[in-house]
Amino acid sequence: MSELRIAIVGFGKIARDQHVGAIAVVQGATLAAVASRNASLPGLPHFATIEELLEQGPPIDAVSLCTPPQVRRAQAATALAAGKHVMLEKPPGIGVAELDPLIAMAAEAKRTLFATWHSRYAPAVEPARQWLATRRLKSVHINWKEDVRVWHPGQTWIWEPGGLGVFDPGINALSILTRILPQPVFVTAAELAFPANCQAPIAANLTLTDIGGLPVTAEFDFRQTGPQSWDILVDTDGGQMKLSRGARIMAVDGKVVADAPDEEYRELYRRFVALTATGMSDVDLAPLRLVADAFLLGKRTLVEPFVD
Amino acid sequence: MSELRIAIVGFGKIARDQHVGAIAVVQGATLAAVASRNASLPGLPHFATIEELLEQGPPIDAVSLCTPPQVRRAQAATALAAGKHVMLEKPPGIGVAELDPLIAMAAEAKRTLFATWHSRYAPAVEPARQWLATRRLKSVHINWKEDVRVWHPGQTWIWEPGGLGVFDPGINALSILTRILPQPVFVTAAELAFPANCQAPIAANLTLTDIGGLPVTAEFDFRQTGPQSWDILVDTDGGQMKLSRGARIMAVDGKVVADAPDEEYRELYRRFVALTATGMSDVDLAPLRLVADAFLLGKRTLVEPFVD
Repeated sequence: MSELRIAIVGFGKIARDQHVGAIAVVQGATLAAVASRNASLPGLPHFATIEELLEQGPPIDAVSLCTPPQVRRAQAATALAAGKHVMLEKPPGIGVAELDPLIAMAAEAKRTLFATWHSRYAPAVEPARQWLATRRLKSVHINWKEDVRVWHPGQTWIWEPGGLGVFDPGINALSILTRILPQPVFVTAAELAFPANCQAPIAANLTLTDIGGLPVTAEFDFRQTGPQSWDILVDTDGGQMKLSRGARIMAVDGKVVADAPDEEYRELYRRFVALTATGMSDVDLAPLRLVADAFLLGKRTLVEPFVD
Repeated sequence: MSELRIAIVGFGKIARDQHVGAIAVVQGATLAAVASRNASLPGLPHFATIEELLEQGPPIDAVSLCTPPQVRRAQAATALAAGKHVMLEKPPGIGVAELDPLIAMAAEAKRTLFATWHSRYAPAVEPARQWLATRRLKSVHINWKEDVRVWHPGQTWIWEPGGLGVFDPGINALSILTRILPQPVFVTAAELAFPANCQAPIAANLTLTDIGGLPVTAEFDFRQTGPQSWDILVDTDGGQMKLSRGARIMAVDGKVVADAPDEEYRELYRRFVALTATGMSDVDLAPLRLVADAFLLGKRTLVEPFVD
């Protein structure tokens, strides 16, 4: 099999921190170019826009879109129309319905559209899913609190319409939740705290449930200083399971049963390479649907302005 | 075929204005009971809650849920669990994902779940759909402006989380739009005007498009006094089509080509009776998905408090 020649589009923090390194080590993937208005990588062909990349760039098979979600749909459509496979950073769009035409285009062109949820590839996710499958669940609590100034410095797009605010990390928790639970969940109530100067919430509390009435709560907060938390706790008839550090670690009743290094982005690119071999797509919109529902039915409160 | 014995649950304005009269004239449907905390209909068995109705009431085959959307999911689940067919007023829920378990329950129980969109049964909708199917569309504009004090007097639920505000009528326009256009649309931008004392918008501007880039705009406003407008205009290569008065009237280049009396709710109950004959469900979530996306990606502004 020949190498999948990938261009990264959008060369911000996540592209540099994760994508470049992952592509470098994944067999069958090779980084062929970068498109970004501002940034480039020494030694690699660089273009300002995806259009210039496609017109003037070296031959590529796929694009990995690491741009803010507000511009990604149009870029994905452009890439699919040019016959390229497309990998989307999370969230896959600024709305749920905008994915439908992309899915149709990908199917028509027999190209892969891969809406990634990197947190689902954290090492403890699959062990947790399997462990929960044989237990009776009593309750679930998500505690996802981080310091936006540390993790999203200067990312103004996150506060603009479509930027999701605290749901940008929160959707990672929801992507894990919707993978490990045996039944689909839905939002029944939400409280969204909007800074007076922002178009996206800085904190949110969600109440969810499933067809059996399982109580699920989630606390998302972007104002966390000191210890950061990316935890999911599940009480069951077989004890309490805890996923911590973004599902890197799984413990049952306090005893660690899984602890492995983070290979999320390597796993994403392994999956992307495998998908492109047959042109299959992988687009699960469940996490984004939950966020859309939270915005739709949530109670909004105004909180103090956010200054980065 | 025996009559479908229907109980209306929630006996507010829409139940009285539309449902009672429609059931009375539709062949195969009969009104058997009412469940409502406050209201009743002389001569008909009355119960305070759906639970009392199901435990103590006369035999029924179906419930028609005319309660506010915030309580409807639990009532629908209760009715389906009791083996009843369920008809949902619009919107079908306060979130999109909450419909999934109801759809699963209905399929499992071989009972009908009918998520109604009454405006789709307006007389000019089908002629419009057929007319548009053979034209090249250039642009679409929706103008949906009504006086909330006239049409929703005292309906405080409409301003609470999940109540949709101006999208309660606006979703009627979207239910027509998603029926008459040849391609699915999605929201690309939205402006939502929230009264400072309300949890739902009083006005909204939407920008939508489809896979081909069709420009679609919508103006929803609940503050309209004087002439009310429920219009959809479509510019095509074959002239301008206008649906007015909530798709009661269709005109092409100013010439009326369809104009018939409103039978929306009669058509709804005819459809419900037909669906229950086989236990098929009819749940199209496209209009609610568009509203959820508008909330998700919309720009929020605060406007003056609303006092009914």
